[in-house]
Amino acid sequence: MSLGDLLYAQVNELFPICRSITGNGVRETLKILARDLPGLNSKEIESGTQCFDWKVPNEWNITDAYIITPDGEKIADFKISNLHVVGYSIPIDRIVTLEELDAHLHSLPELPEAIPYVTSYYKERWGFCLPHAQRLRLRAGNYRVKIASSLEPGYLTYGELVIPGRTEEEIFLSTYICHPSMANNELSGPVVAHALAQWLLTLPSRKFTYRFIFIPETIGSIAYLSIWLAHLKARVRAGFNISCVGDERCYSYLPSRLGNTLADRVAKHVLKNLVGEYKVYSFLDRGSDERQYCSPGVDLPLCCISRSKYGEYPEYHTSLDNMKFITPDGLESSLECFRKCMICLEGNEILQSTMICEPQLGPRGLYPMLSERNNQDQDLADLMNILAYSDGERDLLGIAETLRRPLWELLDTVQKLKDHGLLRSVSEGRVRHEWT
Amino acid sequence: MSLGDLLYAQVNELFPICRSITGNGVRETLKILARDLPGLNSKEIESGTQCFDWKVPNEWNITDAYIITPDGEKIADFKISNLHVVGYSIPIDRIVTLEELDAHLHSLPELPEAIPYVTSYYKERWGFCLPHAQRLRLRAGNYRVKIASSLEPGYLTYGELVIPGRTEEEIFLSTYICHPSMANNELSGPVVAHALAQWLLTLPSRKFTYRFIFIPETIGSIAYLSIWLAHLKARVRAGFNISCVGDERCYSYLPSRLGNTLADRVAKHVLKNLVGEYKVYSFLDRGSDERQYCSPGVDLPLCCISRSKYGEYPEYHTSLDNMKFITPDGLESSLECFRKCMICLEGNEILQSTMICEPQLGPRGLYPMLSERNNQDQDLADLMNILAYSDGERDLLGIAETLRRPLWELLDTVQKLKDHGLLRSVSEGRVRHEWT
Amino acid sequence: MSLGDLLYAQVNELFPICRSITGNGVRETLKILARDLPGLNSKEIESGTQCFDWKVPNEWNITDAYIITPDGEKIADFKISNLHVVGYSIPIDRIVTLEELDAHLHSLPELPEAIPYVTSYYKERWGFCLPHAQRLRLRAGNYRVKIASSLEPGYLTYGELVIPGRTEEEIFLSTYICHPSMANNELSGPVVAHALAQWLLTLPSRKFTYRFIFIPETIGSIAYLSIWLAHLKARVRAGFNISCVGDERCYSYLPSRLGNTLADRVAKHVLKNLVGEYKVYSFLDRGSDERQYCSPGVDLPLCCISRSKYGEYPEYHTSLDNMKFITPDGLESSLECFRKCMICLEGNEILQSTMICEPQLGPRGLYPMLSERNNQDQDLADLMNILAYSDGERDLLGIAETLRRPLWELLDTVQKLKDHGLLRSVSEGRVRHEWT
Repeated sequence: MSLGDLLYAQVNELFPICRSITGNGVRETLKILARDLPGLNSKEIESGTQCFDWKVPNEWNITDAYIITPDGEKIADFKISNLHVVGYSIPIDRIVTLEELDAHLHSLPELPEAIPYVTSYYKERWGFCLPHAQRLRLRAGNYRVKIASSLEPGYLTYGELVIPGRTEEEIFLSTYICHPSMANNELSGPVVAHALAQWLLTLPSRKFTYRFIFIPETIGSIAYLSIWLAHLKARVRAGFNISCVGDERCYSYLPSRLGNTLADRVAKHVLKNLVGEYKVYSFLDRGSDERQYCSPGVDLPLCCISRSKYGEYPEYHTSLDNMKFITPDGLESSLECFRKCMICLEGNEILQSTMICEPQLGPRGLYPMLSERNNQDQDLADLMNILAYSDGERDLLGIAETLRRPLWELLDTVQKLKDHGLLRSVSEGRVRHEWT
Repeated sequence: MSLGDLLYAQVNELFPICRSITGNGVRETLKILARDLPGLNSKEIESGTQCFDWKVPNEWNITDAYIITPDGEKIADFKISNLHVVGYSIPIDRIVTLEELDAHLHSLPELPEAIPYVTSYYKERWGFCLPHAQRLRLRAGNYRVKIASSLEPGYLTYGELVIPGRTEEEIFLSTYICHPSMANNELSGPVVAHALAQWLLTLPSRKFTYRFIFIPETIGSIAYLSIWLAHLKARVRAGFNISCVGDERCYSYLPSRLGNTLADRVAKHVLKNLVGEYKVYSFLDRGSDERQYCSPGVDLPLCCISRSKYGEYPEYHTSLDNMKFITPDGLESSLECFRKCMICLEGNEILQSTMICEPQLGPRGLYPMLSERNNQDQDLADLMNILAYSDGERDLLGIAETLRRPLWELLDTVQKLKDHGLLRSVSEGRVRHEWT
Repeated sequence: MSLGDLLYAQVNELFPICRSITGNGVRETLKILARDLPGLNSKEIESGTQCFDWKVPNEWNITDAYIITPDGEKIADFKISNLHVVGYSIPIDRIVTLEELDAHLHSLPELPEAIPYVTSYYKERWGFCLPHAQRLRLRAGNYRVKIASSLEPGYLTYGELVIPGRTEEEIFLSTYICHPSMANNELSGPVVAHALAQWLLTLPSRKFTYRFIFIPETIGSIAYLSIWLAHLKARVRAGFNISCVGDERCYSYLPSRLGNTLADRVAKHVLKNLVGEYKVYSFLDRGSDERQYCSPGVDLPLCCISRSKYGEYPEYHTSLDNMKFITPDGLESSLECFRKCMICLEGNEILQSTMICEPQLGPRGLYPMLSERNNQDQDLADLMNILAYSDGERDLLGIAETLRRPLWELLDTVQKLKDHGLLRSVSEGRVRHEWT
């Protein structure tokens, strides 16, 4: 079973669960994710807790929902698709006319076979979502509407995993777990984040501390920031919002508000060198938790790498964003992309050549002893160029950009030069200074 | 009668007056402009006054000028066109041969029907300007040349209007009144400036103090700067030289020497968003009073918006730059352009979101309570985006540029956000600090 | 005899000498160059001297070398071409089989008629270079190989010429004299440098002190820097590595590592205004002594102007880089290019207009007293524009770039404005301050 297949299977396992911004669906999702990810802890924040301008809402749970038509047919059955019920619907069990019902129905004329995804977190109402084609077939008569939900004081639940590194500087990875049965937006995100964390745990050593959070979108990131803002602002060196990373369409990059943070530089370097072509969005196209992470006064160095970005594909926020929309290859190559980002972050440092002028490389076995025309190969060119640009000001990422080489292909050469005492890192000291 | 027709009629009223850099034509012009513009005062500077490297020249006045041909025909008649006499011609009344006369004639072979506009402010001479076709028809013989002018110690006259605002920071608007009967260059300038001032006076409140000057070109701006330089350098936040704004050809933008002042930013924003296409000149193409305002050590934040720019159209500085060259629509739309510049300046401020993270807009009635696909409209997008970019560093002009939206279409949303306590201005304090 | 012919003749005289990084060939070359260049002194550094990471190698001299074939034919005869012997070959006089010999032979299959240029400075070995076509014709049998060389403690020899100027600020010109009989790379370099120095000596006065060095590549520049680094870093304002300047192909520009030094600005200005089109290389394409001069911690403001750059033409480092490859015109026009660079450096200064606002030019005879349409010519435009941009911040090079005019065509106008007291230099004082 390939890694992609494993990721796909995990999405598949999580798919049926009815998640929302609070409730047991979130707890169940986190439990599954924690099964093989030691250290992933569930945290809870009480309903009513003030988080900046927001209050954590009541907890919503649901066990069943459906409509019985005048013909006795059960439609909009929550047990068939949890998208059928408007998220955060209040409980109801009533007989209504078609006209009354219609005011509570949601459908998409442009996608007549799709069930749309609709929520009403902050205003109490009830409603059903169904394919537009089906809605058109409804005849006058009395309908029984039943929603077996509860909306009561409880908790907002989220997952947090901190993987320690040699330094207290952090890489921040955020993904969301608040959508019911949808695949690209959303399950691709937590599943890829989960696999990325597993991979980081296998590394023999990490420079950075890695902080993963699995949160409900918007209220979750706001709540998390309301607790951790000072810590994150002091420690986070780069971050990514991981969302919509399951399909095989074009890669997307959405910059931070400031546009030139370390996360942005890494994302562009990886996308250019690993992927080649990718779609560049503007921060004006934002829509997920980067809205909070990059808001004025927060401004974490965080950007987004996606495949088909939220809001940009027809299946978005409908029942068509399902297991057919994503693929094992899509998930695996997205994971690889984030791995490369982590490798770039781990490998990046400010380098300084230890010698004035070029060192004599020949006697060290690093340069041919016979001078002939055209005897340079790529490794030798890298070696000479890294030395030439390691001026104690540039970081390796900048050097890799100048050299038009992927950073990860330079790491062996950097190590070789360090082993020969020809290169030294000057960033560790500096960086430590920054946060001590 | 449309506003454009009113502007056109005013140009028409001023057209026959013989203006020069000094003299009664300037006084008469200012008197007409002041009729319906309270506060526009005429000021005078004595001949001989030293203004930096220059001296205010003697005052020139003229009542008549003509040539009588050997056939007794009166030609080059000042009473028919004041362009017929070289500006600042000394008085003369003499009989001369054709050969002697010819050395004092000016015509344009490339525009054989046009009377050119020629002056000699700083070297005493006399001369006549006439159509080249007419000049070619002159036959040998004795000609009587008569110029009834005077060149004597007197005054340089200019107009000044200061419209007070809430702050002592100033917007500086300069236009010139030294050309005889020409329409685009020059009367479009003072007439549009005059209407702009009238409009500013109708505003219920102004942030800025507005300083308008109506001066003779070059010597007037130098003389004005010799008195007001320190004041202007301390107070002026943006300025425009208003010239050649009467025809309907392409808009022109001529940057300040520094190129990126607030005036430049506003001019480009308005031209891009109001006009669309416009011709961008270089400061190397300068030719009017920006030569002084942007000279080293002066460097006021001032640029020029024109229609057909001085020196760039065939009719320039000839009798063809007449009432047919300009139009009511040309004048009115140029005025609108400057109004929008003033609106941008008045509305521009550094903004700061008052909340950490996004505020909860729904309960404030600023955001839909039901979350469906694609439920954002332009106003909502503006509102979210203004909040997202109001970081206490950017000004609204910069935000409007980022949002690719005209600043003036954002003002209502800014006000709404302020009314809800979600946005505050942080520039007033700063700015006051700058000039106190 | 044209200047180009003289340069060509000098290359021709130097061509037969067998130069290497040390030895009598260097001494002989410097002696010829010093014949008509007073002040060019030879300096020597002892073998074994430590220079940063390097040691000056033993001195190599050679009087003869050849191979006798089994047929008794003398081939690879050093006396016919000194390229036949691998540079720094140890002495040998032995009978070897073809197989044994073959391991010591060097040839170029892609250029079967060319003798390649091969060296082995830092590993003792012996070897011969010959045309690949000839190599293929060698038959089995016993070969006598004879190299009459010596490799013993001695000296590294280089030439140095310092031409004093009014200030102690220096322009640094480096060229190399370590290659045997090759024309473009290398003799064009020292010969053009030599002529440039002669021309500088004819100037009545020089602002800058000019430092020329004629060194062996790599070890020479490293050795020189090991002695002069602090001095050069304090004094050098611009520098050029002069190499490959003898042919008539496209001009090449190779920037400094930092890319925007005064030398880079001058090189680009001259190439654009004198030459027009030229090939822009990256510092990644470096290969000569800029490797040392621009290395981290050294970072002299130095770049390279070449014709066919080293490594970029097929004849490079072979016997085809001969007197047919270069031309009198190629040498002369390259010299002219460097002269213009020196003129730009000498003429460059930070200028400041002495007046507030434009000065009154008419009475000074600098502006027409009659104002008519289109009466500006290039000189007048230059004059007005230089005044307008001389703000005490920009240097003349920057002004020339803004004006899109060659700096050297502005010098008369600058002088005229200074003579009238309208312009003053503000750089001399500053610059003196920098290095006092």
